Amino acid sequence: MTSRILTLSCPNTAGIVAEVAARVADNGGNITEAAQFDDQFSGTFFMRLRFDIAEEGLGAFTTAFAETAGRFGMEWRLKDAARPTRMLLMVSKFDHCLGDLLYRVKLGEMNADVVGIIGNHPEEVLHTSLHKGFDYHHLPVTKDTKAQQEAEVRRIVEETDAELVVLARYMQVLSDEMCQFLAGRCINIHHSFLPGFKGARPYDRAHERGVKMIGATSHYVTADLDEGPIIYQDVEAVSHADTPADLIGKGRDIERRVLARAVHLHLDQRVLVNGRKTVVFGK
Amino acid sequence: MTSRILTLSCPNTAGIVAEVAARVADNGGNITEAAQFDDQFSGTFFMRLRFDIAEEGLGAFTTAFAETAGRFGMEWRLKDAARPTRMLLMVSKFDHCLGDLLYRVKLGEMNADVVGIIGNHPEEVLHTSLHKGFDYHHLPVTKDTKAQQEAEVRRIVEETDAELVVLARYMQVLSDEMCQFLAGRCINIHHSFLPGFKGARPYDRAHERGVKMIGATSHYVTADLDEGPIIYQDVEAVSHADTPADLIGKGRDIERRVLARAVHLHLDQRVLVNGRKTVVFGK
Amino acid sequence: MTSRILTLSCPNTAGIVAEVAARVADNGGNITEAAQFDDQFSGTFFMRLRFDIAEEGLGAFTTAFAETAGRFGMEWRLKDAARPTRMLLMVSKFDHCLGDLLYRVKLGEMNADVVGIIGNHPEEVLHTSLHKGFDYHHLPVTKDTKAQQEAEVRRIVEETDAELVVLARYMQVLSDEMCQFLAGRCINIHHSFLPGFKGARPYDRAHERGVKMIGATSHYVTADLDEGPIIYQDVEAVSHADTPADLIGKGRDIERRVLARAVHLHLDQRVLVNGRKTVVFGK
Amino acid sequence: MTSRILTLSCPNTAGIVAEVAARVADNGGNITEAAQFDDQFSGTFFMRLRFDIAEEGLGAFTTAFAETAGRFGMEWRLKDAARPTRMLLMVSKFDHCLGDLLYRVKLGEMNADVVGIIGNHPEEVLHTSLHKGFDYHHLPVTKDTKAQQEAEVRRIVEETDAELVVLARYMQVLSDEMCQFLAGRCINIHHSFLPGFKGARPYDRAHERGVKMIGATSHYVTADLDEGPIIYQDVEAVSHADTPADLIGKGRDIERRVLARAVHLHLDQRVLVNGRKTVVFGK
Repeated sequence: MTSRILTLSCPNTAGIVAEVAARVADNGGNITEAAQFDDQFSGTFFMRLRFDIAEEGLGAFTTAFAETAGRFGMEWRLKDAARPTRMLLMVSKFDHCLGDLLYRVKLGEMNADVVGIIGNHPEEVLHTSLHKGFDYHHLPVTKDTKAQQEAEVRRIVEETDAELVVLARYMQVLSDEMCQFLAGRCINIHHSFLPGFKGARPYDRAHERGVKMIGATSHYVTADLDEGPIIYQDVEAVSHADTPADLIGKGRDIERRVLARAVHLHLDQRVLVNGRKTVVFGK
Repeated sequence: MTSRILTLSCPNTAGIVAEVAARVADNGGNITEAAQFDDQFSGTFFMRLRFDIAEEGLGAFTTAFAETAGRFGMEWRLKDAARPTRMLLMVSKFDHCLGDLLYRVKLGEMNADVVGIIGNHPEEVLHTSLHKGFDYHHLPVTKDTKAQQEAEVRRIVEETDAELVVLARYMQVLSDEMCQFLAGRCINIHHSFLPGFKGARPYDRAHERGVKMIGATSHYVTADLDEGPIIYQDVEAVSHADTPADLIGKGRDIERRVLARAVHLHLDQRVLVNGRKTVVFGK
Repeated sequence: MTSRILTLSCPNTAGIVAEVAARVADNGGNITEAAQFDDQFSGTFFMRLRFDIAEEGLGAFTTAFAETAGRFGMEWRLKDAARPTRMLLMVSKFDHCLGDLLYRVKLGEMNADVVGIIGNHPEEVLHTSLHKGFDYHHLPVTKDTKAQQEAEVRRIVEETDAELVVLARYMQVLSDEMCQFLAGRCINIHHSFLPGFKGARPYDRAHERGVKMIGATSHYVTADLDEGPIIYQDVEAVSHADTPADLIGKGRDIERRVLARAVHLHLDQRVLVNGRKTVVFGK
Repeated sequence: MTSRILTLSCPNTAGIVAEVAARVADNGGNITEAAQFDDQFSGTFFMRLRFDIAEEGLGAFTTAFAETAGRFGMEWRLKDAARPTRMLLMVSKFDHCLGDLLYRVKLGEMNADVVGIIGNHPEEVLHTSLHKGFDYHHLPVTKDTKAQQEAEVRRIVEETDAELVVLARYMQVLSDEMCQFLAGRCINIHHSFLPGFKGARPYDRAHERGVKMIGATSHYVTADLDEGPIIYQDVEAVSHADTPADLIGKGRDIERRVLARAVHLHLDQRVLVNGRKTVVFGK
């Protein structure tokens, strides 16, 4: 028996759960986790199912389910729960999120293989040492070389067959083409509690405004900067005595926690995109 | 079409979801919410299902489902989602939780009818005025009159046909017989973050110990004091400068928030008892 | 001995603490709480001091301190810690914050006298009953009658000698003149985590955007809507399954908690305005 | 000008602040931060002061202050704010806290020099690589060799002149003598929200009890296991679906956050011991 995760979405109608569950049961599968959501606003149905099934039943299930999926107009994905996701990490000189993700991978906490790291600074600027042993691609970028650098990034994504790209404080705005290329498989961490303080230098602006909490937001990357579907957010209290430098320090803690959580949720197939929003099936 | 909530538990085995979903679909129902949990430690399966069904399909569903339930050895409950639960509130002179619950009921936030309030102090000691218009039973209690007073409480529970009894800072230890009588339908708020500071005067003891956070715990009442299945807990930071009186003040805020949440979850049929623990299907 | 709270701000320079503390000690006072903040960005020094002093020493202290204050160019305020603040509450038909504040006052948790309540709806629309026994002024407002209504509000503020006006979900935009009139003594609760979702219907907009946390912000009222100095903020997690109505419900809990906290801090003289920001000396 | 941090405690009496502030002002110092606490229960006064002073004024200040301190019966400490604290880290095979602290040190976030790392396992078992370049002492310990191993630890503490020893999930119970030796300069992270689940395997016990939040506690080490003065605590929500392994995973995040915070507070001289409690002067 191996464990599979099925995620799907389709126009909502009666009988979906019964049909899906029947396909699993008919082929000797046993559902161990199930979650669903009916979006009353868009009329869309979302589901995530984890089930155990014998290898020999899997083919029959897939065939039967494909038929069902076609009938209901489903978008769907079936993943071997045990197989690690191929993950590419991108970083600037701020490496707290990178180091955090790498440690979690080493610990076995995240079901992912790191297929490479792309930095726009040389690896000597990093404070962590956890990147050693992974392929580190130093791809500096300027306004003039951006198109060329992005072509290089694209090449690496393709060559490594990366399924997920994580912008772990990469600090560069991607071109529309790049956003398009990575759509649905690229997670960013924005160092503010969106939709407040979109754009650059959010901690300085938070200090100027005198907010009493700062936050971070992890979201899928879309062409519209800082407007991608939000996966996870968190905040921390700050005080009048916190300088912009203090906010940046506190921010590091929030950012790495929020990004790690979003990546974790994505790797577990718990995040489904719903237009410009997400459906997140928490544990 | 009306909305029904089905909750069930049974020994875990393959095919439960398919069977349950099929019973709903067969009888023209449409599942709008579903959550399940397989407890690998006890081998028990838990499920909560909300579905819309026409009045005329309900009888057929109930008959068919009862057969399925028998086959799987299910404990189950089917509730009309719209019908308010009959709720009895018990209070001492600390009425912050009482006032909070009553306000939420008046606002329509909680799907419950308050069938009465029992206080062991006269209503004149209360600071809230929201209890006015409800039946207030003043049942003082001393060591000597306890058995008699509890008989009276029992009579009121029975006469009002109360489905849920909430100890909203009632501050009296119930007898084992009373706990037995109310088993599974009585929620208490304990003014500490269990299992720390069981028993009396937890805020004084928290102050003496110098903890940096205090909390509150809502749980089902069992004969074993402060050991009932926990429904919800929350905490708040405190500092060295907080006196026991300050802790009591902060505690009021946590207690009413934690109790309200537990009652809310219970009223929505989101809490299933799992031995000395609970399964809570959050939204 | 009575307890006094001294708050002050002035251009920062060496020796302020020594001078202030000497004035207290010279006149037989005993400092029981002290907090200070040097704003390195504006060069301003802020201080809050609580001290016990005999009635007979108070006059001499005040005279001596006034001289010191003049020398350092201080803005300052000396308040009898025991004397309740005269507080006027304003409300629309959403009365959860009003009820919460009134309960806290009745409980003795807040050192304030409620000198009146102004509502732009008749009191019959309220769900709470805690306003009974207080002067309730029903002052409906339309675009056409706004000037006139605000004149009436102003008259009540003056007649009741209100020191603090709390907009407890008053839901009306005040005119610039009114903001001016109430400057520094009027606290509003905005039902979003500023600076995100300024303006109207923030919960609907939060739902549309798919944020994973919603919040509330209490701030002093200034002419620039939603831009006043922030006193306190808090948030709560929400999920894809929360409808706008759910967000409004969760929001009620956050709003009343955030507003109560801000009012509490203000009543304890813990909030000093620092340009468009605040200095908050927590306990 | 250099920056100094003065911390002191003494029996409470009138005039302390004035005297201390006068000593600073008399010698050309400028107070930039000040916080105080009067413990009404023990009658003890606690103060933390940060001030800028010229090197040439420092000697005179110290002499003058020592006289004042003697008069008031103060325990006190004066630290050069810029000087890093000599910190020794101890670890078992669970290295998430170790890696986290080392990264913060490398980043310059913590004002400390790591003078060594003691592990009771060989460094090969570690998942982090951030310890490389630091002295790693592998000191295995068994019941039989405990006395001898602790003597070795003691020797390293003395030779490195360590001012602070951090038990970063060291997982060994120290002998009473060792606790005595390290009193006031040794911080432990306990993997539960004390006082709940003292002792071994707290996450398993949390799972059995079905709590809805787990936490971690950082505290000074004393002979009475898990009863030392608490510095900082935090919690995170968990659900019925979290297995003991999940709790351990979530716990790692809480533990490293809580320990880092406690170490940070200690390094900034913000923690004063008050019997079996602490006074923590937050920013």
